[in-house]
Amino acid sequence: MQKQLKQLPGLGFRSAERIALHLLVEKPERLPQLVAALQAAASSVGRCETCGNLAEGGACTICADAKREAGIVCVVEQVPDLVAIERSGAYRGRYHVLHGKLSPIHGVGPEQLNLGPLVRRLQGGEIRELILALSNDIEGEATCHFITEKILADTVKVSRIGFGLPSGAGVLYADSVTLKSALEARRAYR
Amino acid sequence: MQKQLKQLPGLGFRSAERIALHLLVEKPERLPQLVAALQAAASSVGRCETCGNLAEGGACTICADAKREAGIVCVVEQVPDLVAIERSGAYRGRYHVLHGKLSPIHGVGPEQLNLGPLVRRLQGGEIRELILALSNDIEGEATCHFITEKILADTVKVSRIGFGLPSGAGVLYADSVTLKSALEARRAYR
Repeated sequence: MQKQLKQLPGLGFRSAERIALHLLVEKPERLPQLVAALQAAASSVGRCETCGNLAEGGACTICADAKREAGIVCVVEQVPDLVAIERSGAYRGRYHVLHGKLSPIHGVGPEQLNLGPLVRRLQGGEIRELILALSNDIEGEATCHFITEKILADTVKVSRIGFGLPSGAGVLYADSVTLKSALEARRAYR
Repeated sequence: MQKQLKQLPGLGFRSAERIALHLLVEKPERLPQLVAALQAAASSVGRCETCGNLAEGGACTICADAKREAGIVCVVEQVPDLVAIERSGAYRGRYHVLHGKLSPIHGVGPEQLNLGPLVRRLQGGEIRELILALSNDIEGEATCHFITEKILADTVKVSRIGFGLPSGAGVLYADSVTLKSALEARRAYR
């Protein structure tokens, strides 16, 4: 059990041991509850057929929400990215989760990404704008390029999220590449 | 001597002691050289009359360089910000160093900033674009607003450097405010 716990992210040898002993010695009544909760999650939570987000049943809460704008789709790499954008409260459209980014060095090609459902959504014709919220690195850039060149019809508007100084940051501690993109991405101020 | 050294940025008690003993015991011949270098710097380096950068004599190397585009001026808070942008190699115009940003809470008003020379430069009529490279925080925003509203003629183009994901960063670890500004600052991708 400790070995399994140790493989979870953020847990090392000591914390895994602590949790294992907590469940076995201090609060043995919690162990079956935890098992039941994990089993329930394993059997009920799957992938949203439309966007690839986590979902109970066929559609995730965002795709099922009629109040979210269906014409705008934000493409992210992973579910946690979606969660981060949701937390910011700055976005009212829908999502598409790729479950990765193109990375030949790690053996990730277009087939490994959740692109088929995106193609079907685009063919459906409801999407009028795609926002690429992928990492600001070479693999993110390659994935943006692939989607724009190979998948997207010319009629769909496509934009990529802005790069530059993060919130609260000054110029001094920004690295050269960030400064370069911040200068390129400068916007009219009035 | 150790007390003076300790007040320098990045030096604590131990490193100050180490440097002091190095100069006094190990390499006493370096001490007069260092004193001479510091004295020479103190007497010869001043502020550029045009832009507020460090300068030997009246004009700094950037203002004196005829190859730098004179029509574009990048406004920064401090000299180290200028150095960081120079290091990025992404900019070929000139600068204006404010030596601070508006901050009523720290008693910094427009009079405390190096704004007079900027007004004179703008009146000179050579500047056609101003790039505001100030911090991505409230004080930076206030300073941008002040310059745009109170100082700038309508004929001068003004932009602010981009905000969003820093170089190499993913969406997941960005804070909510950064994600918000990255979404707002999204740019057409083709």
